[in-house]
Amino acid sequence: MEHITSMSNPRIRHLQELSTRAKARRRDRAFVIEGARLFADTPPEYLREVFATEEFYKEAPEAVKEKLERAGAMLVPDALIRKVSDTRTPQGVIAAAAMPDWDMEDLFRENPLILVLENIQDPGNLGTMVRTAEAAGATGILLSADTVDLFNPKTVRSTMSAIFRLPVLTAGDLLEALDLLKERGVATFAAHLGGEKTYDRLSYTGPSAFLIGNEGNGLREETAMRADTKLLIPMHGRIESLNAAMAAGILLYEADRQRRF
Amino acid sequence: MEHITSMSNPRIRHLQELSTRAKARRRDRAFVIEGARLFADTPPEYLREVFATEEFYKEAPEAVKEKLERAGAMLVPDALIRKVSDTRTPQGVIAAAAMPDWDMEDLFRENPLILVLENIQDPGNLGTMVRTAEAAGATGILLSADTVDLFNPKTVRSTMSAIFRLPVLTAGDLLEALDLLKERGVATFAAHLGGEKTYDRLSYTGPSAFLIGNEGNGLREETAMRADTKLLIPMHGRIESLNAAMAAGILLYEADRQRRF
Repeated sequence: MEHITSMSNPRIRHLQELSTRAKARRRDRAFVIEGARLFADTPPEYLREVFATEEFYKEAPEAVKEKLERAGAMLVPDALIRKVSDTRTPQGVIAAAAMPDWDMEDLFRENPLILVLENIQDPGNLGTMVRTAEAAGATGILLSADTVDLFNPKTVRSTMSAIFRLPVLTAGDLLEALDLLKERGVATFAAHLGGEKTYDRLSYTGPSAFLIGNEGNGLREETAMRADTKLLIPMHGRIESLNAAMAAGILLYEADRQRRF
Repeated sequence: MEHITSMSNPRIRHLQELSTRAKARRRDRAFVIEGARLFADTPPEYLREVFATEEFYKEAPEAVKEKLERAGAMLVPDALIRKVSDTRTPQGVIAAAAMPDWDMEDLFRENPLILVLENIQDPGNLGTMVRTAEAAGATGILLSADTVDLFNPKTVRSTMSAIFRLPVLTAGDLLEALDLLKERGVATFAAHLGGEKTYDRLSYTGPSAFLIGNEGNGLREETAMRADTKLLIPMHGRIESLNAAMAAGILLYEADRQRRF
């Protein structure tokens, strides 16, 4: 296996660029994955350049060793991974991975259950929504162009590798995308503090999409207006709103519950 | 209003200690709240020492100005708040607040709906659970002694001021606390990847408690065994577990749904 020891090695510099710059990620259609768990869960065809410490390689289970070898992993000192890593306690493996290619049609497999996210700003929130959407059986996610970058390291980590499996697309124009959903027979539901209907009195057994807005401000009014229905998640006490990812999870699991019954 | 300009002022040093040291918080039964929103939502009787910038005071709405004055707020330079603050963009107001005093009996008001958390480690997760529990109509939360400190600044922020309204207690011995819940007629449900019953096929209309475990490892086996029922939140795709706060929210809102119908 090849050894790299210098921070100025162009491959390392490239990895660092992918870790810190969204522009570089878009240009190269690649992003950074980190850690033993995420490396193990990344489909091999997405791995581009893999870097591991000698210690990680030596102590890895046979299957992981093999995956490292097949991916042409390069051995690097621990200090170097620490410099490139986005986490405080890196786990000895880091890699550049190719972005999955999704098509709008991927959202319409079987009985569509789609999450439409507008201007979500917290990377952890976005990642949690990707993870939860896969778990709840969603067919995919549509992001507004002003949503935080899906491929930043914190988001990627929070998806727990769902980023490689769940179709997530960015809509150049979210309102146009909503019109497309409607044309395709998808009922659209906007989560809204002024919603007239309680979320669990509506049916999501047919093709459905949930619209969730920014953490602080919710959906833009013109986006919410474009939905077929504004729904409300009722709240007790003096809470004014739920965390955006939480709202998404509650709605998606209500859809899943109805679809299982 | 009194002016403070020196970082070495004992009141400022005390605030900084409360912000960074759980031990100091426990000793003084006080913690730090930050930001315009949280200050506005903190019941005045909990405010101990309040610090605001001149700019914040000048630009505050009349009600907030009055609250600052009644609390005997001290004016401090922006740089000083920035030094004490836990956030990157402090908002000109920071305060020491008294910890609310709760009693086990507070959990048993009306029809108990209790969240029991074991060894939760992510401060944001814990705060989100407090916020969501109030919203879902829970009567309170029981924490294992090894759960992350409820009063650290990140947790406090994530609760969105629910920390002052929702009873949250720490159980010296979680298993004993579970026995107490049972004695009081509360049905206990453990969220468990090996659960035999799907969560939405169980009834939570009577007194109920949900047990949620650590983000990485779930509940300890002996804790899960002590519950009346192990329940499962079904997952599609290849997701192995939900985020702990997400699991809590889905269960609490299912209970709320059943109780509203």
